Amino acid sequence: MAHIELGNDDPGIRGLMRYRPLTAGPLSDLAETLLRADNSLTRGERELIAATVSRGNECTFCGNFHATIAAVELGVDDLAEAPRSAKMTALLVIADKVRVSGQSVLDEDVAAARAAGATDEEIHDTVLIAAAFCMYNRYVDGLGTWASTDVGDYLPSAKHISVVGYR
Amino acid sequence: MAHIELGNDDPGIRGLMRYRPLTAGPLSDLAETLLRADNSLTRGERELIAATVSRGNECTFCGNFHATIAAVELGVDDLAEAPRSAKMTALLVIADKVRVSGQSVLDEDVAAARAAGATDEEIHDTVLIAAAFCMYNRYVDGLGTWASTDVGDYLPSAKHISVVGYR
Repeated sequence: MAHIELGNDDPGIRGLMRYRPLTAGPLSDLAETLLRADNSLTRGERELIAATVSRGNECTFCGNFHATIAAVELGVDDLAEAPRSAKMTALLVIADKVRVSGQSVLDEDVAAARAAGATDEEIHDTVLIAAAFCMYNRYVDGLGTWASTDVGDYLPSAKHISVVGYR
Repeated sequence: MAHIELGNDDPGIRGLMRYRPLTAGPLSDLAETLLRADNSLTRGERELIAATVSRGNECTFCGNFHATIAAVELGVDDLAEAPRSAKMTALLVIADKVRVSGQSVLDEDVAAARAAGATDEEIHDTVLIAAAFCMYNRYVDGLGTWASTDVGDYLPSAKHISVVGYR
């Protein structure tokens, strides 16, 4: 049960957004912009960054949800099956460092991503997506929201978001 | 020097926002909503949450900027002079726990805030503001942006934001 009375039984961030529409708007706009707006990183690649950070932060709702939507966007049944480019491998190193602290990202991490083909804009967006999921994860868990531990439960809403988006 | 070529010399998040207007929009909207929209927590109290989290994360730009704007909003020269209610003391305990991880917030922390007079909405907003600054701090530091260590440098822009807002 959540730490506060939400007045609804929706899991994870969905219950919080129904509880507080004022903040749900900008939070949804940010997710849509980061994960779905036109970008040289595919939607699947950006969802993979979100899933990796959320799993690193042990956020059950965000980890399961974004791993599922990443798999949907990448066209695989399981994320472990998805091919991973050298560029994405280097960007995920940066994302996981951002998860721990902004200060832990070094010039050499950025140089490695560039050497693997990442543009400055892709490095920027990777840092911001990783940082944003440090927010979403803390929001969802800091208020003690409920989340299913059955990853299959996330597939219908992941497919739905893949079509209609986060707004 | 920032990890990527920003094409401008603005400090902290300002340089990043000029570099990437696409993401600056939702990030500004979120800050305006969290820190300045109508709320039973004053603007000064919400800036104090932002400053406390940013200092805990050792983010020079956000820590100095939001401590300065908190002092402006609270009408004191130095945050240490500002009176602090039992409610704000309890909410800042929750904010600092969110900073470490969402999972570290316990029912007893929330009960203590309620006993000190905090509403559920105030607890919600405290968690979300703390979580959001875990994003802003990581964004600013994960891209290695420059920030002045002279707190006096932040006063003009803090006074400006206090009047015109974050958008």
